[in-house]
Amino acid sequence: MSLARVHNFSISLDGFGAGEGQSADAHFGHAGDRLHEWMFATRSWEAGGSGGVDDAFVRQHDPGIGAEIMGAGKFGHPGWHEDPEWKGAWGPNPPFHTPVFILTHHPRPSIEMEGGTTYHFLDASPAEALETAREAAGGKDVRLGGGPTMIRDFLAAGLVDYLHAVVVPILLGRGMRLWDGLEGVEKDYKVEATSSPSGVTHLTFTRAGI
Amino acid sequence: MSLARVHNFSISLDGFGAGEGQSADAHFGHAGDRLHEWMFATRSWEAGGSGGVDDAFVRQHDPGIGAEIMGAGKFGHPGWHEDPEWKGAWGPNPPFHTPVFILTHHPRPSIEMEGGTTYHFLDASPAEALETAREAAGGKDVRLGGGPTMIRDFLAAGLVDYLHAVVVPILLGRGMRLWDGLEGVEKDYKVEATSSPSGVTHLTFTRAGI
Repeated sequence: MSLARVHNFSISLDGFGAGEGQSADAHFGHAGDRLHEWMFATRSWEAGGSGGVDDAFVRQHDPGIGAEIMGAGKFGHPGWHEDPEWKGAWGPNPPFHTPVFILTHHPRPSIEMEGGTTYHFLDASPAEALETAREAAGGKDVRLGGGPTMIRDFLAAGLVDYLHAVVVPILLGRGMRLWDGLEGVEKDYKVEATSSPSGVTHLTFTRAGI
Repeated sequence: MSLARVHNFSISLDGFGAGEGQSADAHFGHAGDRLHEWMFATRSWEAGGSGGVDDAFVRQHDPGIGAEIMGAGKFGHPGWHEDPEWKGAWGPNPPFHTPVFILTHHPRPSIEMEGGTTYHFLDASPAEALETAREAAGGKDVRLGGGPTMIRDFLAAGLVDYLHAVVVPILLGRGMRLWDGLEGVEKDYKVEATSSPSGVTHLTFTRAGI
């Protein structure tokens, strides 16, 4: 069975997955790096980093994944679609190494990057996008890459099998919320919380029966 | 030093401290008892209950407290002020056992209850109310009792020394939020998270230096 999985999705205590004022220089707006410092401090990211629960979660990002779906805001800053040469915010060798499907109302031809990543552009519903990504994943799982709006839409549509969210102890006050409009969604999941010595809390939603 | 402390303040994953549709029969609106089941399952509430981290936090509610301040919505359902005989939603022997100051735009004469609780009614700012409650507390701490709007106002005014919030793994979707408009408030605090086997996460904000 090919699952739809979310990993390392960081949110503030007040539920924001990205700050306000996103731009080419500020991928997460006024949040800066604060939502992801816990991740950069792990051994997976840096020699000498922590090897505890944070690192254990980070290491689940890649195994078993055959494709990713991401929102337009993860691919680039607002307005990237106006630049025909834009190849994403993730460098020449992006950290995905699989087909990646970008949800956008401005589709363009696919782009082959180094390291196995190919960007495809889709103007499609969550269910349609997942079907397309599953075919490309060849039996493996599909990672739902974010941002917040895209994860929320997939949760609302009942399409998420596993969600790993990381609650960071800051109050952003403004930006894009993850949880809006999801009343009762937890009923379909086993929800577990694990606090880490780093100060973050790992939250997992695992669909019943998987 | 007399501290202003919040205890056992439960919120949903999406940050709601009370649901929608509060009434005399539904003190927390559509949330029902779900925000407080973790508390009712402790040994402090019921013989044979759990004696772990949840219970350890619950037991900090009373010691050292000399007075409480609560919002009008904790004292009673919307509209209670129209009933001149109303004596609160907490029974003849309320669980406070100290002076309690109720913030309301409809003040009335004080009411002496059984067990040491006296209700006083104040139309005052957070700072004024805290000053009044501190005098009544005779050198002891003041508990800030909730609801969400009242705690938020005191946080925004910089008047909270210790906050214990409990994140319950449900998504309420609607109601009264705790965290709105508090960007950056965590900077004045040491924030710690402790997940419990019951599924909730205890979050503490402790002001630097106390």
